Amino acid sequence: MADPRFYTAAGPFTLNELAAVSGASIGEGANSEARFIDVQPLFLAGPDHVSFLDSPRYVESFIKSRAGACLVHPDHASKAPKDMALLLTEEPYHAYARVAGSFYPPAAFGNCAERSSPIDETANLGKGTTVTPGVVIGPGAEIGRNCHIGANATIGHGVVIGDDCVIGANASLAYCLIGHRVVILAGARVGEDGYGFAPGPREHLRVPQLGRVLIGDDVDIGANTTIDRGSSPDTVIGEGTKIDNLVQIAHNVKLGKNCLVVSQVGISGSTEIGDFVMLGGQAGLAGHLKIGDGARISAKTGVMSDIEAGATVGGYPAQPMREWLRGVAVIRKMGNKAGKT
Amino acid sequence: MADPRFYTAAGPFTLNELAAVSGASIGEGANSEARFIDVQPLFLAGPDHVSFLDSPRYVESFIKSRAGACLVHPDHASKAPKDMALLLTEEPYHAYARVAGSFYPPAAFGNCAERSSPIDETANLGKGTTVTPGVVIGPGAEIGRNCHIGANATIGHGVVIGDDCVIGANASLAYCLIGHRVVILAGARVGEDGYGFAPGPREHLRVPQLGRVLIGDDVDIGANTTIDRGSSPDTVIGEGTKIDNLVQIAHNVKLGKNCLVVSQVGISGSTEIGDFVMLGGQAGLAGHLKIGDGARISAKTGVMSDIEAGATVGGYPAQPMREWLRGVAVIRKMGNKAGKT
Amino acid sequence: MADPRFYTAAGPFTLNELAAVSGASIGEGANSEARFIDVQPLFLAGPDHVSFLDSPRYVESFIKSRAGACLVHPDHASKAPKDMALLLTEEPYHAYARVAGSFYPPAAFGNCAERSSPIDETANLGKGTTVTPGVVIGPGAEIGRNCHIGANATIGHGVVIGDDCVIGANASLAYCLIGHRVVILAGARVGEDGYGFAPGPREHLRVPQLGRVLIGDDVDIGANTTIDRGSSPDTVIGEGTKIDNLVQIAHNVKLGKNCLVVSQVGISGSTEIGDFVMLGGQAGLAGHLKIGDGARISAKTGVMSDIEAGATVGGYPAQPMREWLRGVAVIRKMGNKAGKT
Repeated sequence: MADPRFYTAAGPFTLNELAAVSGASIGEGANSEARFIDVQPLFLAGPDHVSFLDSPRYVESFIKSRAGACLVHPDHASKAPKDMALLLTEEPYHAYARVAGSFYPPAAFGNCAERSSPIDETANLGKGTTVTPGVVIGPGAEIGRNCHIGANATIGHGVVIGDDCVIGANASLAYCLIGHRVVILAGARVGEDGYGFAPGPREHLRVPQLGRVLIGDDVDIGANTTIDRGSSPDTVIGEGTKIDNLVQIAHNVKLGKNCLVVSQVGISGSTEIGDFVMLGGQAGLAGHLKIGDGARISAKTGVMSDIEAGATVGGYPAQPMREWLRGVAVIRKMGNKAGKT
Repeated sequence: MADPRFYTAAGPFTLNELAAVSGASIGEGANSEARFIDVQPLFLAGPDHVSFLDSPRYVESFIKSRAGACLVHPDHASKAPKDMALLLTEEPYHAYARVAGSFYPPAAFGNCAERSSPIDETANLGKGTTVTPGVVIGPGAEIGRNCHIGANATIGHGVVIGDDCVIGANASLAYCLIGHRVVILAGARVGEDGYGFAPGPREHLRVPQLGRVLIGDDVDIGANTTIDRGSSPDTVIGEGTKIDNLVQIAHNVKLGKNCLVVSQVGISGSTEIGDFVMLGGQAGLAGHLKIGDGARISAKTGVMSDIEAGATVGGYPAQPMREWLRGVAVIRKMGNKAGKT
Repeated sequence: MADPRFYTAAGPFTLNELAAVSGASIGEGANSEARFIDVQPLFLAGPDHVSFLDSPRYVESFIKSRAGACLVHPDHASKAPKDMALLLTEEPYHAYARVAGSFYPPAAFGNCAERSSPIDETANLGKGTTVTPGVVIGPGAEIGRNCHIGANATIGHGVVIGDDCVIGANASLAYCLIGHRVVILAGARVGEDGYGFAPGPREHLRVPQLGRVLIGDDVDIGANTTIDRGSSPDTVIGEGTKIDNLVQIAHNVKLGKNCLVVSQVGISGSTEIGDFVMLGGQAGLAGHLKIGDGARISAKTGVMSDIEAGATVGGYPAQPMREWLRGVAVIRKMGNKAGKT
């Protein structure tokens, strides 16, 4: 379930309403007036929840799911548990995007209430914390002791910040829980929507992003860096990790402890990175990878597959550093030869 | 002509004044007290306008132009229409930058008036639209219904936003017309100056950027992404296109409908991209290219020439994906061989 | 010494206190109650200062240093000048990070005082300068004539801005001295902390960044670009240089005059770039390099070593443009051949 600290579901919606919004048809025998209170993945959903089956990989979860309703392709309907109400559709993920968007419409993601006092009266600031002009702090935010919040920074509703943190000017934080002694420089964006869309041949539908960003103690985050919140799992930055300016960290990424991430690196969604990993400037990592502890990824490297612990890699696609440099030398030699003939 | 919704030309200026500011000399027979009200390209200019001829490519336009005055190299003077006043200079584009800068000085581009109320009384907000603390909205801005404007966001004068839009915290919008159901995340910059300079061996002169950004319905724009306004034509983002974080879109780019643009992509000036194009993370596109519908440009690709509709490309310079991967395999094999000898 | 315009050292601290905070032990014969007022490099330090020896390269400076105290590895202790108090440690740079962090704790870097008026009464604004809503200006800032400060921009304490400058909406400036006719677009971050950490096998320690950013006349800085302040020397942008959007300029970089730096370029720490250098989009430069006047570095190039004046380079690692293109042609030919067999 989405953290109630940050998210409040609209609804409940009846099966009829969900069919209407998603364009799905209601499966035989289902009670069209049954009410549902939230969306959930198959393995977590209960009788009050709507889920979806998007890929044959999850048919086992579907068969065992306790979800009260499920968006599903007609081909899989016969495998449904017998008490599950079915919403039949050729495009279950698109339909899910519409249903989830009904429970969590985009406007609900604005992170401060209208025309409230800039520092909401339900926000809680610890002793010794200084707030400079122009700062906006949303309802229910909790900020520890001896923090400094820079001018025109925005702290969204429900955000938690530990002690001895520094938040830079014009930075914005939303949907995040932040440890102690964290430094976030000017213009950093923590907790914005992940890039999650149900792509399609006619249109791409926004999928509500319902996770958070968890930031450990002693983390540094550079200027204008962006760290998106998780789609349903969380995005995690391990303690002691130091992130430079203009870095992109996508939804659901797990960055380990004491990593060094140099400027303009991009890490795609759901990639998991171990501890003490070094990422050189402008390196790019594809999604859903695993990078082992202590790996060193040199500047501008393009990583398209898993990297073992302790490895040093370069080039695009990434290969062991020595092999990359050997390849470079070979090309140069041949280029020079070609130049002489 | 620059959209009067956003731009107000200074002036009028006499031919004498324009000669003084540009360092040009007045051609024989011209009335040095004649007055001019604006700059215009050769093909649009009328008798009240100043234009310029910078390249032999445009000599035909020059010959047919109705411009009242024109900055031109002495070599081309003989081809001028007979009623055109000439401003003769060795560096017509530099001279134009100075003249245009007189009509549109940089300070005029600040997008909110001084010490006005944060929400200007001439701005118009639709029913159901919520504005959070710290938001600044300039004169004449029009915002539709049921929008949410995040804390400390800045909406410049004259900006138009449709219904059901969400503007993130600390974002800034200027010189743009935005459709319905558009989501713009925190820190995005829409409508800033394009990177337009008249380069030269002694100095580079800023050329006023007088276009707009047009954003279609259902567009998403990521955190800290920058979309520059056009120099004179507009920058256009087609409906349904989804743009990730930290993307750069330069002046005069046309992005088609339902494109997917992943984080840290850079698109250079005047490049035109079709519909349903996919651009992988950190890809870079040179300027003035045409990318066909449905093309897929993989991550980190460097595109230096046009791409056909439906093509899938990779590498730098970009080539068909299969060829790129074959080249990679060949280098690896040779590198390994070299490593063994 | 750090510029007192921007930095105020905490302290003084006794040798005992410095030993405690750094984990170093006090060398034989030193007065543990002696007081120190600041940190300084070996060659600048006097009797009231603490310095450190981190690398054998600086042993000569150590031998000649007038520093009152020095953090040093026990192996080098025997070479110390006889009046120098020693703080012995296996990790002098880590220990220095802790000592410098005591003199300059992170919270001291917030660039505006608490709950002051948004425009501090000790700030000084020239005639004709316009300030729009939401702007925050810190104590002691000095802004020249006829400037325009965009909505929600943040100007830190002590910042100096010349005449006829335009500062964009939501931009933030700190620890910088800015010339005349400078244009800084929305969301740019000038003067944030450099990425300076004492790395280690257990943790990475933040090293206080005590320099400034110096920006010459007629410089343009793009939207969401980040220019970090120096660590102890300054970061310098030469007059007439034009920087596009989303560019990263690290601490201690020296950019010459009239350079053109296209979007998404990254320049690593302490690299020095001559005049009239062109850097294409997404190019990346390693740290501590020297790039000669008039060099042209094409888009996406990765520069790992010095570049001569006037050279045109491409590829990664960078090589002369012609050689790079020849190498590309060779690979393509071989890839095609491999595809046919």
